[in-house]
Amino acid sequence: MKPSEIKVGIVGGTGYTGAELLRLLVSHPQAKLRTITSRQEAGKPVASVFPSLRGLVGLNYEAADDAALRACDVVFFATPHASAMSQAPALLDAGVRVIDLSADFRLRDAGAWARWYGEPHQAPGWLDRAVYGLPEVNRAAIRSAQLVACPGCYPTAIQLGFLPLLEKQLIDPHRLIADAKSGVSGAGRTAKTGNLFSEAADSLAAYSVDGHRHLPEIVQGLNIVARTEVGLVFVPHLVPMNRGIFATLYGRLTNGTADLQEIFEMRYRDEQFVDVLPPDELPQTRSVRGANVCQIAVRRPLGGDTVVVLSVIDNLTKGASGQAVQNMNLMFGLPEETGLRIPAVIP
Amino acid sequence: MKPSEIKVGIVGGTGYTGAELLRLLVSHPQAKLRTITSRQEAGKPVASVFPSLRGLVGLNYEAADDAALRACDVVFFATPHASAMSQAPALLDAGVRVIDLSADFRLRDAGAWARWYGEPHQAPGWLDRAVYGLPEVNRAAIRSAQLVACPGCYPTAIQLGFLPLLEKQLIDPHRLIADAKSGVSGAGRTAKTGNLFSEAADSLAAYSVDGHRHLPEIVQGLNIVARTEVGLVFVPHLVPMNRGIFATLYGRLTNGTADLQEIFEMRYRDEQFVDVLPPDELPQTRSVRGANVCQIAVRRPLGGDTVVVLSVIDNLTKGASGQAVQNMNLMFGLPEETGLRIPAVIP
Amino acid sequence: MKPSEIKVGIVGGTGYTGAELLRLLVSHPQAKLRTITSRQEAGKPVASVFPSLRGLVGLNYEAADDAALRACDVVFFATPHASAMSQAPALLDAGVRVIDLSADFRLRDAGAWARWYGEPHQAPGWLDRAVYGLPEVNRAAIRSAQLVACPGCYPTAIQLGFLPLLEKQLIDPHRLIADAKSGVSGAGRTAKTGNLFSEAADSLAAYSVDGHRHLPEIVQGLNIVARTEVGLVFVPHLVPMNRGIFATLYGRLTNGTADLQEIFEMRYRDEQFVDVLPPDELPQTRSVRGANVCQIAVRRPLGGDTVVVLSVIDNLTKGASGQAVQNMNLMFGLPEETGLRIPAVIP
Amino acid sequence: MKPSEIKVGIVGGTGYTGAELLRLLVSHPQAKLRTITSRQEAGKPVASVFPSLRGLVGLNYEAADDAALRACDVVFFATPHASAMSQAPALLDAGVRVIDLSADFRLRDAGAWARWYGEPHQAPGWLDRAVYGLPEVNRAAIRSAQLVACPGCYPTAIQLGFLPLLEKQLIDPHRLIADAKSGVSGAGRTAKTGNLFSEAADSLAAYSVDGHRHLPEIVQGLNIVARTEVGLVFVPHLVPMNRGIFATLYGRLTNGTADLQEIFEMRYRDEQFVDVLPPDELPQTRSVRGANVCQIAVRRPLGGDTVVVLSVIDNLTKGASGQAVQNMNLMFGLPEETGLRIPAVIP
Repeated sequence: MKPSEIKVGIVGGTGYTGAELLRLLVSHPQAKLRTITSRQEAGKPVASVFPSLRGLVGLNYEAADDAALRACDVVFFATPHASAMSQAPALLDAGVRVIDLSADFRLRDAGAWARWYGEPHQAPGWLDRAVYGLPEVNRAAIRSAQLVACPGCYPTAIQLGFLPLLEKQLIDPHRLIADAKSGVSGAGRTAKTGNLFSEAADSLAAYSVDGHRHLPEIVQGLNIVARTEVGLVFVPHLVPMNRGIFATLYGRLTNGTADLQEIFEMRYRDEQFVDVLPPDELPQTRSVRGANVCQIAVRRPLGGDTVVVLSVIDNLTKGASGQAVQNMNLMFGLPEETGLRIPAVIP
Repeated sequence: MKPSEIKVGIVGGTGYTGAELLRLLVSHPQAKLRTITSRQEAGKPVASVFPSLRGLVGLNYEAADDAALRACDVVFFATPHASAMSQAPALLDAGVRVIDLSADFRLRDAGAWARWYGEPHQAPGWLDRAVYGLPEVNRAAIRSAQLVACPGCYPTAIQLGFLPLLEKQLIDPHRLIADAKSGVSGAGRTAKTGNLFSEAADSLAAYSVDGHRHLPEIVQGLNIVARTEVGLVFVPHLVPMNRGIFATLYGRLTNGTADLQEIFEMRYRDEQFVDVLPPDELPQTRSVRGANVCQIAVRRPLGGDTVVVLSVIDNLTKGASGQAVQNMNLMFGLPEETGLRIPAVIP
Repeated sequence: MKPSEIKVGIVGGTGYTGAELLRLLVSHPQAKLRTITSRQEAGKPVASVFPSLRGLVGLNYEAADDAALRACDVVFFATPHASAMSQAPALLDAGVRVIDLSADFRLRDAGAWARWYGEPHQAPGWLDRAVYGLPEVNRAAIRSAQLVACPGCYPTAIQLGFLPLLEKQLIDPHRLIADAKSGVSGAGRTAKTGNLFSEAADSLAAYSVDGHRHLPEIVQGLNIVARTEVGLVFVPHLVPMNRGIFATLYGRLTNGTADLQEIFEMRYRDEQFVDVLPPDELPQTRSVRGANVCQIAVRRPLGGDTVVVLSVIDNLTKGASGQAVQNMNLMFGLPEETGLRIPAVIP
Repeated sequence: MKPSEIKVGIVGGTGYTGAELLRLLVSHPQAKLRTITSRQEAGKPVASVFPSLRGLVGLNYEAADDAALRACDVVFFATPHASAMSQAPALLDAGVRVIDLSADFRLRDAGAWARWYGEPHQAPGWLDRAVYGLPEVNRAAIRSAQLVACPGCYPTAIQLGFLPLLEKQLIDPHRLIADAKSGVSGAGRTAKTGNLFSEAADSLAAYSVDGHRHLPEIVQGLNIVARTEVGLVFVPHLVPMNRGIFATLYGRLTNGTADLQEIFEMRYRDEQFVDVLPPDELPQTRSVRGANVCQIAVRRPLGGDTVVVLSVIDNLTKGASGQAVQNMNLMFGLPEETGLRIPAVIP
């Protein structure tokens, strides 16, 4: 079932994950963008909103057009939360496959979703059928999924970092700490005072220390791997850079003799998009800017019993749209790296 | 008439010029802030909006309170345009002195104002009586003014740069070019997509090439100095930095033998806030970050007949609130530098 | 002569143009990197210097290895000036084609080169045979060239901006002004105090106002197009961003009735890498970040007789390594866009 | 002993802590700068190296001039490590008081110093007599000290954050984690590739995870407070901003009923330069940019047994030169806040 052409639709293509999806699909050999919707920009050329796509994307934004979306093989939702859960079910029922980049189908528990997002879930029946789109954990299920819930940016970086330790039961699962730092594009393209250049530049801030919406998603994923209820403290920070997540993870080693470097290398040795750095290197976000890669280092400072994992991704690529394309490749039987061997842009 | 205390009110203190005014007034020995208004933030402590002022400013924002404002010696308007022109006249009539940091009283011609700002002027009778608050040109008039129209940021940098050349009639006044670059705080603290960190960072853009609202103000000022109708092309750019205006000015020399360095040094030798750099130095905006100074260099590349003036200020200090305090000092008979000998913050 | 494989060597691959060349060649279907040299990093994996290339470039840096370079079809010099002129001739004599990204073969006049670079030229005999690698001007000559001198970043943006006006003799060629702004990567990867983050961030500075080394190159190119000795004032500025050149160009119109938009569109209508924006758009550097594109707008503020051209490129891509690959494609008979239809990375 | 004038000398005034010291001393009513030394810049005006000080600092750098330094009441060392330990003893013996901003006298143990700095200590006899200049801990001793070792930037932020918890024995002292983030000025003004704008901008990196030189200093300070050997994991990160330290501290509560907000407020209620934020605010570095303040918040996410302290300072002000002036004020019997009530510069 390797199609020569995958007909693609995008709902909500005026945010940063939408723009990133367009950037990646332009270079994808099989994906053919058929329609892209936006309520506010309907009628406008995509390239007038994102001049970086001039000459590469010829489409105009359309008002939500169900017929066009139903004619697609796959539809990506690059919308704020609470949009896909009301729009996707009709497409799914019509047999279209859906990859949702928003939070709508990430949590299994409709009650938890309602608590964290402050409104009832509109399609609780699809929560069980949605596959959580972290290929390094769910590859087989993704291949046959009709609905993939693409992980959030923080959850991707943090889960990939803790995974090898929890799978091997090397750390106390009840005392996990994730000190995470994000570039400002993670806050989206909506005009808010706090995300103005003059508010965020040349400064570092913590936020949502009392509970960030990505927390239940991360915990849900770690619980499965750890086969127990993990305890996680998650502190996000806003960094004056465009892209990037840097997750610094702390765990208490329960097994002091394990070769951590070896364990990480073995865990990810067949993964094309997780790169365990050599023992003498530490990651930086710019090395994955625009690339669908997670770079990871593991350390045990001064030989103590605290393990530190440093996990970096581009929040828009491996943390959103790149991972979405990776999921699409799996769903359509393509080599997983199709269209995704794009080197990072440095400096 | 050197008062031991100047009672100060501020209208609209939640933007960047308001915050800068507060920063400067905190260190001013005579000014005592009595009241500060804000429609949206009424009731909130100033320090909760600007935590940088914790322990330094104890006031809460008030809804517009005319009685409190009328009890002040001077009221600063740090509002968007079209606000002072409706609110200030009542205060002026009550004998309060007003320093307007907005554009409302900068143009002499109510018709021009209406054309550039798209609405009729509400207080045309005050336009003649307003003194344009560029102390390096209007010092005497400012001293006795009741209403001072504080110059815009671009106009300050550009006028100070062209002044010595036009006064001495050294350049063709009909072929002036001002290529100007501004930090993002110049765009204000209102939430707009284009000023988001992720839109402005790591990028440079031009804007308003077909006519920026500061153009008529600059031309009006240069006309007076040049005693003719000048011709000016003004191209503003947005730079990924918080503060700073860098104006690169081009003129065609009509007198090829003048010692330009000497002329600039003589023109500004008694000015405390205009600093002509030595011949081997070029300005950079960070050297005036937070300081009420204009640093200027003048060059004649390869000895040709084009003169290049490089004029930098902090848009919020010498380009707005610092200049406003300088005006206040003049109006109240204080030494001009009172509270303004604040060194720039580098790096 | 469309080769299935082009054997490529790189001399000096530890700077930013070298890194950018590697990024582009990784995605190029015909180019096969065979050897890359670096004196200081010899022996080290390329990916240890640029972790962004892990998994994509497997080579180690080698000390200069003439045999390996001679076995290549083409060798890129990504070295500081004064290196290619001593190393390239032996390769050229051996029949290897050379694309020099440095300044060594850009000027026709060895005397001028010596004056601007402060040392005699080592290979003056090759200056005449070098083809200036601006495809939009020299496409035919590049195809058959053995030695291509790749243009500098400022020269690319400025020449492409002035070209249509000078070719059509629409402006006074003796009064050209180029106010240009560059990202800091243009200053290279050498450790210098002035290029430290804490010196360049959150600030704007002008430099080399009295004569930048790119000036004679620009003038040489414009002279040819204008068929006269042009007069150019060129003022470069350093902008706190990684990549990008923004050239704001000013000319005096001698023909007031020409349709400038139309002229620019016609001039570049067959050029894949020069994009004339629609009349209502202005360029920004981020729209070409990482892309081999020059985006241009042309304006006539307030209908006056000054034309303003706004020309932006990525200094490392269309301003260096992307253009070098474009030249390689031409030299080896490939479609010019091979490996270069890479969308810009925003935000 | 309140002097009307304190004669001040500075050794090594070309780095960022030196520049910051100059900025602060300019506004200090009692301090009179008498001499400033620099080996490389001897003879040059200070204002030519830091144009931000034009008109404010008239001195030239001098080659090390012992007589001039001996005539001072106090000499600040703003030098890299290993300089003060060889130069200061002679001054101390001559009765001059010394405030060392470098690491030379911070550790009590000469052996530890030698291990961490890779060379033997030159003045071990002074280690015991040096007073660690953290006024919030050592105020009384500082007043009478002849030699003050000014704390490092990370140590200031981290110690002030952990202090209230350790003093009250509220957390397990053996499991402390400090995830700290620093602006690039913390790396100094020496030209190094890693600190170039194009290496550090738009990116986040961790460094020295296996042992940063500030670690033993922090541990030494916390040991005293905790009256036991603490266990600390310290992971520093480099943030693309000029100034600022953001320390996110994690501890395991051993007492779950304490009112943490109250404890922090009580601990610092009499401290002018430590500001405990209200329960609904989180700190950001820009709110202390250029100010001699530590802003702190304390949180207990989801009511669990992990306490999170968020402690921010400006690394050059409260983290270096501001604290040095605070120490000077104490040593010379001045009100502690003399010259230090400088509001932060935002944006």
